[in-house]
Amino acid sequence: MKICIIGYGTVGRGIVELIHRKKLDITVVGICGRNCGVYNEKGIDLSMLIKGTKGVGLDKYPHARNDIDANKMIDMRCADVYVELTPTNVIDGEPGYSFIKRILANQCHVVTSNKGPVVLYYKGLQKLALKNDVKFLYEATVGGAVPFLNMVRETLRGNKIINVCGILNGTTNYILTRMGAEGAGLEQILREAQELGIAEADPSYDVDGIDAAAKAVIIANEFFSANAGMKDVDVCGITRITPEFVSLADKNGFSVKLIAEVGRDVLRVSPRLIEKSHPLCVDGTLNALNIKVDMAREVTVVGYGAGKYETAGAVISDILSI
Amino acid sequence: MKICIIGYGTVGRGIVELIHRKKLDITVVGICGRNCGVYNEKGIDLSMLIKGTKGVGLDKYPHARNDIDANKMIDMRCADVYVELTPTNVIDGEPGYSFIKRILANQCHVVTSNKGPVVLYYKGLQKLALKNDVKFLYEATVGGAVPFLNMVRETLRGNKIINVCGILNGTTNYILTRMGAEGAGLEQILREAQELGIAEADPSYDVDGIDAAAKAVIIANEFFSANAGMKDVDVCGITRITPEFVSLADKNGFSVKLIAEVGRDVLRVSPRLIEKSHPLCVDGTLNALNIKVDMAREVTVVGYGAGKYETAGAVISDILSI
Repeated sequence: MKICIIGYGTVGRGIVELIHRKKLDITVVGICGRNCGVYNEKGIDLSMLIKGTKGVGLDKYPHARNDIDANKMIDMRCADVYVELTPTNVIDGEPGYSFIKRILANQCHVVTSNKGPVVLYYKGLQKLALKNDVKFLYEATVGGAVPFLNMVRETLRGNKIINVCGILNGTTNYILTRMGAEGAGLEQILREAQELGIAEADPSYDVDGIDAAAKAVIIANEFFSANAGMKDVDVCGITRITPEFVSLADKNGFSVKLIAEVGRDVLRVSPRLIEKSHPLCVDGTLNALNIKVDMAREVTVVGYGAGKYETAGAVISDILSI
Repeated sequence: MKICIIGYGTVGRGIVELIHRKKLDITVVGICGRNCGVYNEKGIDLSMLIKGTKGVGLDKYPHARNDIDANKMIDMRCADVYVELTPTNVIDGEPGYSFIKRILANQCHVVTSNKGPVVLYYKGLQKLALKNDVKFLYEATVGGAVPFLNMVRETLRGNKIINVCGILNGTTNYILTRMGAEGAGLEQILREAQELGIAEADPSYDVDGIDAAAKAVIIANEFFSANAGMKDVDVCGITRITPEFVSLADKNGFSVKLIAEVGRDVLRVSPRLIEKSHPLCVDGTLNALNIKVDMAREVTVVGYGAGKYETAGAVISDILSI
């Protein structure tokens, strides 16, 4: 199978390294950076690429060409699957949205880790994929390495989904866990999390619940055909949660968690008290999703929602399923 | 899709009720009890069957015939899928083993919830299914409603499995949880669990770790191509665990759990100390499986390992996947 990668950041590098290291039967024919690209119809030499781009952008790689960009590479239809990995933008979904539309219209499959286009244009992109008889997959957008979407789609067949509750943001879970363990305040933990690379320079996307809300929208559209958008989510972040509150909860057998809840009539992200013995009550950067269904009663899946190889692994699982 | 059910106990009834209640696109053409059967090539009237067998065996149902048995029904090739639900027997796998061989040889698909044949004759049955180009599925044998096998097979594609640890027996988990909460001893809790229908009259299958060992064998053969049998499992049950031990563990932040561990070089069932914050540390009758892999790092799945509709749901998911 031939793939072309658009966006060569952390996840893109992770994918290339895994394909190379695991000797997967996937041929990378093209990679596009912001203003340049690498192309070889017989397959890019990944060993050389990994060495040549270590610590630098694709534009510093000697074999990168300036006469090639994502749109050109898309129109060449050089791959069976285009892997779209441009940064998430939940305002207008660009540039990912235009790339994905163009790829699907060209009748090639799309795998993406980019939440923006999925959150904003779910229905339209699904329709376009169906019309062109190609797949549009985005497992990595919800729960990173945890196969939330595919698990419900493929392994809980026949079950009617009643309600979904989950910890969908590892950064806030890390902050709340440390608040409970050390009694430190949000600002101090945030600073340290930023140094560790767990939190972004601008942490509002995480701590205000926007990231979790975006994932809740994807779940609502995927599992409940909700046609929902960001504005439909009732969001409250964790900025007003204090160590005193977390400690008091702890004394009573609860943990404070930022929970996304999605159901037929509910679409909400808010801090909630979860019993410590509940399967959803997982710590650190872990993500968890509890799915209530009519036959299996309830199933909880726990795993790592972010990380270079974890997210890359989810993308690769999608590629291999095509 | 036409199915024929062999063995009309709790799970068989659960399947019939779910197909009827959820109006699933599955036609039940045959059902075999111990010495009788019901057959209608156009589909059995499930509403009448459910009413007519309420609280009694299939042999009391007016439309059950004595001139029909499982072997006859199998040789009629009246269904696309035969659902084999005879009781588990880990000594020689009968009568399920002979039924399954006969069905596969007749080129019909098999879905089973019966651990015996899968534990004892995994390789032979897989080969027979492959040779006859039919499916042999058994999701319900490990973890009941929790899609352990299908999740790893289908949604963690491309991942190499490094190690699997799990709570695979709900009865012992229930006993250990209550021991921790109440300080009661094994015998007292067992008596109450038997009254609640959580433990069998002869509880040794659960408390000696045999049930968990059988499931560990299935996982070893499925995920590690181990060609393992019951004798290969290093088993220690929970009979020597005391409330004092559980309470001491608790004071140090641990729970005592009966853990099955399966890896390239390990096949073991034993009571172990699990940190309370670990995703595997779930209580009551819950089952849990923690899977370490090379890309997603680790994924934990939690759910109900037994129960009429839960197990029936796992069988139905297998049927629908065919």
